[in-house]
Amino acid sequence: MESINMQKQFPILNQKIHGYPLVYLDNAASTQKPLQVIESLQQYYEQDNANVHRGVHTLSSRATDAYEGARKKVANFLNAETEKEVIFTRGTTSSINLVASSYARAVCNEGDEIVISAMEHHSNLLPWQQVAKATKAKLKHIPLQNDGTFSIGDAEKAITSHTKIVAVSHVSNVLGIANPVKQMAAIAHKHGAVIMVDGAQSVPHIKVDVQDLGCDFYAFSGHKMCGPTGIGVLYGKKQLLEKMEPIEFGGEMIDHVDLHDASWKELPWKFEGGTPIIAGAIGLGTAIDFLEGIGLDTIEKHDKQLTSYAVERMKQIEDVTMYGPDDGRFGLVTFNLGKVHPHDLATVLDTYGIAIRAGHHCCQPLMRHFEASATARASFYLYNTEEDIERFILALEKTKEFFKK
Amino acid sequence: MESINMQKQFPILNQKIHGYPLVYLDNAASTQKPLQVIESLQQYYEQDNANVHRGVHTLSSRATDAYEGARKKVANFLNAETEKEVIFTRGTTSSINLVASSYARAVCNEGDEIVISAMEHHSNLLPWQQVAKATKAKLKHIPLQNDGTFSIGDAEKAITSHTKIVAVSHVSNVLGIANPVKQMAAIAHKHGAVIMVDGAQSVPHIKVDVQDLGCDFYAFSGHKMCGPTGIGVLYGKKQLLEKMEPIEFGGEMIDHVDLHDASWKELPWKFEGGTPIIAGAIGLGTAIDFLEGIGLDTIEKHDKQLTSYAVERMKQIEDVTMYGPDDGRFGLVTFNLGKVHPHDLATVLDTYGIAIRAGHHCCQPLMRHFEASATARASFYLYNTEEDIERFILALEKTKEFFKK
Repeated sequence: MESINMQKQFPILNQKIHGYPLVYLDNAASTQKPLQVIESLQQYYEQDNANVHRGVHTLSSRATDAYEGARKKVANFLNAETEKEVIFTRGTTSSINLVASSYARAVCNEGDEIVISAMEHHSNLLPWQQVAKATKAKLKHIPLQNDGTFSIGDAEKAITSHTKIVAVSHVSNVLGIANPVKQMAAIAHKHGAVIMVDGAQSVPHIKVDVQDLGCDFYAFSGHKMCGPTGIGVLYGKKQLLEKMEPIEFGGEMIDHVDLHDASWKELPWKFEGGTPIIAGAIGLGTAIDFLEGIGLDTIEKHDKQLTSYAVERMKQIEDVTMYGPDDGRFGLVTFNLGKVHPHDLATVLDTYGIAIRAGHHCCQPLMRHFEASATARASFYLYNTEEDIERFILALEKTKEFFKK
Repeated sequence: MESINMQKQFPILNQKIHGYPLVYLDNAASTQKPLQVIESLQQYYEQDNANVHRGVHTLSSRATDAYEGARKKVANFLNAETEKEVIFTRGTTSSINLVASSYARAVCNEGDEIVISAMEHHSNLLPWQQVAKATKAKLKHIPLQNDGTFSIGDAEKAITSHTKIVAVSHVSNVLGIANPVKQMAAIAHKHGAVIMVDGAQSVPHIKVDVQDLGCDFYAFSGHKMCGPTGIGVLYGKKQLLEKMEPIEFGGEMIDHVDLHDASWKELPWKFEGGTPIIAGAIGLGTAIDFLEGIGLDTIEKHDKQLTSYAVERMKQIEDVTMYGPDDGRFGLVTFNLGKVHPHDLATVLDTYGIAIRAGHHCCQPLMRHFEASATARASFYLYNTEEDIERFILALEKTKEFFKK
C-alpha cells in the first residue's frame, strides 16, 4: 500500500473543508476514484466513444472491445466460470431487483418462502417484500442476536424445504461484519433453494470467489470500489440466467422481432436492453485493475487494521456507543456519541473537515433492533491512514466538548 | 455554429482512421462529447464526488446540489412544469420500460388497446408487446404508407375509445422525419388515452417543449445529445407519475420501512431506488448547457441543411437507394448502394475513415416493410461539415467502383 501515492492518485483528497484537510470517512456510501479510473473515462470519450455491438466501423469496434473486455475483467475478478455470467446493471439495487422481478416472481408461489436476515439493507429487503406480495410467498427473517448478527443455527432453522430463495448481505453496511455466506449457500442448496448475495460492502474490501462461495447470484456496485457511479454487476450462474426472462426490452437484446412477438439474444446480452452503460463498465474495469494492482489481500488487511485502530481509539472516548460485534469489522464502525443526534454530530465533524454519514443507513429494521432512530457511521478505505483516524478522534473529542456546553 | 471550434471541443474528431481523417456519421447511434462535458465529469470526480441526499457533509451537499441542479436543467430544457416531473434513468429504453411496467400494466385490461406505429424502434415496440401479453390488451399498429411514414388520418382511425396508451417516436431513427406528435396527443386525449413519446432522435436536434406538445410521457438518452453513456430521462406529467408505483426498490426511494412493508418518498425520488447515476446526470446537465449555448434553433437548422446537402449529393450517385420521404429529414439518411450488403459497405467506408452504421437499426418490422434485411445509415450532428459530406460521397463512389470489380 505504501508504494502508492494516494494523494496523487486521489486528487479529491487534496482539499480543505472549512479550513481543515478533508478526511473522507464515508466510503461505505461511495468511495473516491483514482486518477487511473478518471483518465480511463476521459480516454474513452476522447478517443474511442461509439455505440457498441451494432457497428462495424473502427470506433465502434474499439468501444465494443473495451466494453466486453471490462466484462472479462469482472468475470476474472469474481472467478466466474464465464463472462456470460456477468450482467452490467445500474448498480447493486438494480441487480437485486432484476433477480427479484425475473427469477423470484417466476419460481415463487403461495406457500413458498423467501428467507432474508433482519439486518439487510433496504435494497435487499424491499424487492423481496414486493415478490412476497405479488406471489403470496412468505418473507421470513432470520432473527438477530443482541449484537445485531444472526447465528448460523438460526439461519439453518429458517431455511427449509419451502425455501425458494435465500438473500443475504456478504458484509453488513451497519455492522461491518461478514455473514457466513458459504455455509448458507450449502444449506440453501441442500433444500433446493438458491442464494442471492448482496456484495456491495464486501467486494471493495475482500477477494470474492463466487465459485468457492457457491452463491447463485452476487450483486455489487462500481462506485463503492473506486469505479464510476451508475454501473454495477449482477453475477448469476449460467444455467439460472439462461432460464430467466429479461425485465427490460429494447434494442441490443433481441434476436428476431416482428410486430407481435420477439426472441432474445443469448447471455449476457438478453439482460442488457438499450445502449449499455459503456463508459461506466470501462471505468469499472479500470477500477478492478487498480484494486488488483494493490492486491485485494493487502486492501483487506489495511482496511481491517485501520478499522480496529479506529475502534480502539473510539473506546477511549467516554459516551461513544458502538453497534455490532466487537471485532471482525471489514471497514466501518457505526456509533453514537452520548445523546447527540448523529446528524448534528456529522454536521459538527464536517466543520473540522471530517466526512462521515448519519442516518438509518437504509437499514430501518436494524436501527429499530438497536432502538436507535439513527446512528453515525465512519467507513474506511485504502487511502485512509492512521493520521486520518487521529484527526477524526480529535474532532470527535472537540464535538463532545461542544455539545457539553 | 461557426463561433465554436469543433475540432477543439471534440478531441475525438482529431484522429485518423486507416490513414484518413475520421468522418463520424454514426450520430444517431451515439454522439461525441464536447470537452465541456468530459471536464464536468472529471471535475465532479476530482472535487465533489460523494453519495447524494443521505449525507450532511460538504462533499455530499455539493454532489446533491449538482445532481439536483442537473434535474432542474432538464426540466427547463423540456419546459416541464416542475423538476418533480424529471426522472433520471439509464436511458430511453429504461424510461419506456418504466412506463410500460408501471403505468401500462396497471391501467391495461383485456379489451383495451395500445396503439403504436409500425415504424417504431424495438425499444418502443417490445415493452408494449410484453404489456399486451401480460394484460391481454391488444397491440395495434398504425399502418405505414409506401415511404414508411403513416398518415394522421390512419393514426386517427387507430386511436379509439378502447385506447389506453399511444406510443410513438418523435423522430424516426430510420426515416429521420418527425411524426405529428402534437396532433396525436390531442387525439389520444380526446379518447381519454395517454401518449408516450420516444424522443431519442428528436431531443438532440430540435427544441422540445413537452407542455406545448401535450405529451404525457417523454423519453430520451444523454449519449445521443453530447452527454455521457448510461444516463437518460423519463419526463412524466406529475399527476400520472404520482399515481404510478415504482418498479425498482431499494435505498433512496423510501419513506418508512419495516420488516414486511414500506412506503415511498415523493416524486421524483420514488422512481430512483439505489445510488443514483450521479456523474451521468451532472454530465447530461453540462451537455444541455453546451447545446443551449449554441441554440437548439441553430442546431436544427444546421443538421437539416447538412442532411439535405448529403441527400442531394447522394442522388447524384447511381445505384443509391434512399428510404423514407424525400424531405423533412432532421439529421439522418438511410440507404443502400446497389446490391452491396450494407455491412460490406460500412466496412469499406471505414477503410476511408468514414463511420456509418449498417444493420436493421433496431427496426426489423420497418426493414421488412422496405423489403430490406438491412440498410446503411449516415447520421449527422452539429460538428459535421459539408467537407465531411464530400469525403463521404467520395468514399461512396470509390466503394461503388470497388464492388464493380
